[in-house]
Amino acid sequence: MKISRRENFNAAHRLFRKDWSDEKNASVFGKCSNPNYHGHNYILEVIVEGSIDPETGYVLDLKILKDLIKDEVIERFDHRNLNLDCAEFADLNPTTENISKVIWEALRPKLDAKLGLEVILSETDKNKVYYSGS
Amino acid sequence: MKISRRENFNAAHRLFRKDWSDEKNASVFGKCSNPNYHGHNYILEVIVEGSIDPETGYVLDLKILKDLIKDEVIERFDHRNLNLDCAEFADLNPTTENISKVIWEALRPKLDAKLGLEVILSETDKNKVYYSGS
Amino acid sequence: MKISRRENFNAAHRLFRKDWSDEKNASVFGKCSNPNYHGHNYILEVIVEGSIDPETGYVLDLKILKDLIKDEVIERFDHRNLNLDCAEFADLNPTTENISKVIWEALRPKLDAKLGLEVILSETDKNKVYYSGS
Amino acid sequence: MKISRRENFNAAHRLFRKDWSDEKNASVFGKCSNPNYHGHNYILEVIVEGSIDPETGYVLDLKILKDLIKDEVIERFDHRNLNLDCAEFADLNPTTENISKVIWEALRPKLDAKLGLEVILSETDKNKVYYSGS
Amino acid sequence: MKISRRENFNAAHRLFRKDWSDEKNASVFGKCSNPNYHGHNYILEVIVEGSIDPETGYVLDLKILKDLIKDEVIERFDHRNLNLDCAEFADLNPTTENISKVIWEALRPKLDAKLGLEVILSETDKNKVYYSGS
Amino acid sequence: MKISRRENFNAAHRLFRKDWSDEKNASVFGKCSNPNYHGHNYILEVIVEGSIDPETGYVLDLKILKDLIKDEVIERFDHRNLNLDCAEFADLNPTTENISKVIWEALRPKLDAKLGLEVILSETDKNKVYYSGS
Repeated sequence: MKISRRENFNAAHRLFRKDWSDEKNASVFGKCSNPNYHGHNYILEVIVEGSIDPETGYVLDLKILKDLIKDEVIERFDHRNLNLDCAEFADLNPTTENISKVIWEALRPKLDAKLGLEVILSETDKNKVYYSGS
Repeated sequence: MKISRRENFNAAHRLFRKDWSDEKNASVFGKCSNPNYHGHNYILEVIVEGSIDPETGYVLDLKILKDLIKDEVIERFDHRNLNLDCAEFADLNPTTENISKVIWEALRPKLDAKLGLEVILSETDKNKVYYSGS
Repeated sequence: MKISRRENFNAAHRLFRKDWSDEKNASVFGKCSNPNYHGHNYILEVIVEGSIDPETGYVLDLKILKDLIKDEVIERFDHRNLNLDCAEFADLNPTTENISKVIWEALRPKLDAKLGLEVILSETDKNKVYYSGS
Repeated sequence: MKISRRENFNAAHRLFRKDWSDEKNASVFGKCSNPNYHGHNYILEVIVEGSIDPETGYVLDLKILKDLIKDEVIERFDHRNLNLDCAEFADLNPTTENISKVIWEALRPKLDAKLGLEVILSETDKNKVYYSGS
Repeated sequence: MKISRRENFNAAHRLFRKDWSDEKNASVFGKCSNPNYHGHNYILEVIVEGSIDPETGYVLDLKILKDLIKDEVIERFDHRNLNLDCAEFADLNPTTENISKVIWEALRPKLDAKLGLEVILSETDKNKVYYSGS
Repeated sequence: MKISRRENFNAAHRLFRKDWSDEKNASVFGKCSNPNYHGHNYILEVIVEGSIDPETGYVLDLKILKDLIKDEVIERFDHRNLNLDCAEFADLNPTTENISKVIWEALRPKLDAKLGLEVILSETDKNKVYYSGS
């Protein structure tokens, strides 16, 4: 059984590698590499897999999951510039793939090891990434 | 190949264990344990896995699935109080996890054993449960 | 110019007039009159009409509007039974129309008289009420 | 890790087997077999599974996936009559199941064999098919 | 005060004037004029303006509105070819504008003259028409 | 009769007045004033009011409206930093209110004076602005 919680954060970013020239960044990442950044309303679904606690009827109290997402994701990324404000992306290109991986890696150690974890991250209503640790 | 059908039902409920005091219920379930109930528009997706019938091009006629959901879920739970009106929850806390399990167990014997079954149940646009029988 | 803020609340209710018999309530309001209540995820859009403050570029700081909705609507109705827990509906049938009117009347005196006010309330994804004071 | 791209196409169709009488088609497929066709806004999600390219941070540049969907799906099916205009359905009943299979089979050879592929196709907001090649 | 009800219908159509050549139809209406039709999931919102009945708390029982939409719109247009199956469009180009007008004119005489009426019709999630009788 | 077209753009911005100190900007605009910007997926609905052309059945060919929005809005703002890349906001705080006004003023002279114009701009799924020229 899996439960999920959806949350949002609004951030600026730019697809960019420091070790590439501006021309190469522009050629590979197109308008997503605009030097002055652009931004998105990211929609995050965090899915936790486990078994029902027969006492509470919960796999996990969603308040715990909501607070965990708030501490590990929203406080770090909401209303931020991912490239400039977030150490995780100082040397990591903030593609939706990499953001998903960073979120998964931030949440994983905070959850009981017997619980499964998947994240689904939408950058726009047309683009999504699904990540479950590999 | 999997096909799915989405349906809705609107119900009142309260998270609550009869064998706990009101204080303990309130402490564990918070505002979801309000003694006079609250309610939700539940959104149910029922997913059936099978192979395409080469004659019809269907895995399963969705009219059959729609009618099954109507008989086994909508007729039982729509415009009801899950705690008071539904025998399934007389001694079972109506968390989204437990409601999903009750729905899965109601649908499973009505479908051919060679078909797979998963249910996805949303309590709000932020909370979902995925259940496929274990 | 109009600005709007969307918020949600989850509540139980029953369409019901105390001065009618159970039979008449059932005959007029159908399954919406189930004696043990049912419930909904209400979606509220509050629209405020005014002119842009040239200093801030805001018609109204949405944080003010969000807090106002929280105090006047969410705190009163969320995770409640409208019929039993909310004095406003002690003698008023909690139809979407009447809930919209009660919300509008709660918000109106809290907003500057020069601002216009409209509320849009959805009971389900098929049903909405628009109310602007008459 | 999986990435996905959502696109739409609008098409007419009719559920119909040439080798059946009109009566049998009507009896099995109901109003979906109306001889003059009806239509839908199909919503397609194409999911590609692979590993992150450490250089770009992409599993696959979504521009490549978007263009592939455009060439293989949108150009063929958008604003068309699936039964009359699309050779794929000359002798294949255009159920959502069969359309999904045709789309998967059109995309599969265009993607690197080491990438996984799943398609999710919605015919209406109540009906979906998930197909990943078997 | 206004109330609304949302319903759907799925239909084939083609933008086309009988008195124009195929070339002119194609030149003015583009791919929407494909001779073999295409189709859409139309989403209809019907808005009725009136005052609250103090006895029921309703502007209009939504069941009445739902049944009216079923009789006057869904039964006529759902799973049909608007050009071929619907007499209304025998000599009227089935643009979203004209469909909205036909729907409004079908509903208007069935509603009490003291009630206002507006229809909102979506052809796709990007295109809408609002019509209130002029 | 009104027709509408929905389009999107993704942009970075910061709420900020050059003539205020950083402290005052932070105090009035909170996290929306983060010096390194944040961003949004803006959703724009452009509504044009007019009468049906009896020849085409259109109020306005939506292709014309789509191209106009592309030229006047998407090309200017999509994948840009509104504060740094868009001259319109060099000295104008890019609140949703001001962005709506700038969009309306860009579109107005490009449309026939006998057509009405309204824009609806969403910054997030909770916040919207409606503007029709005053």
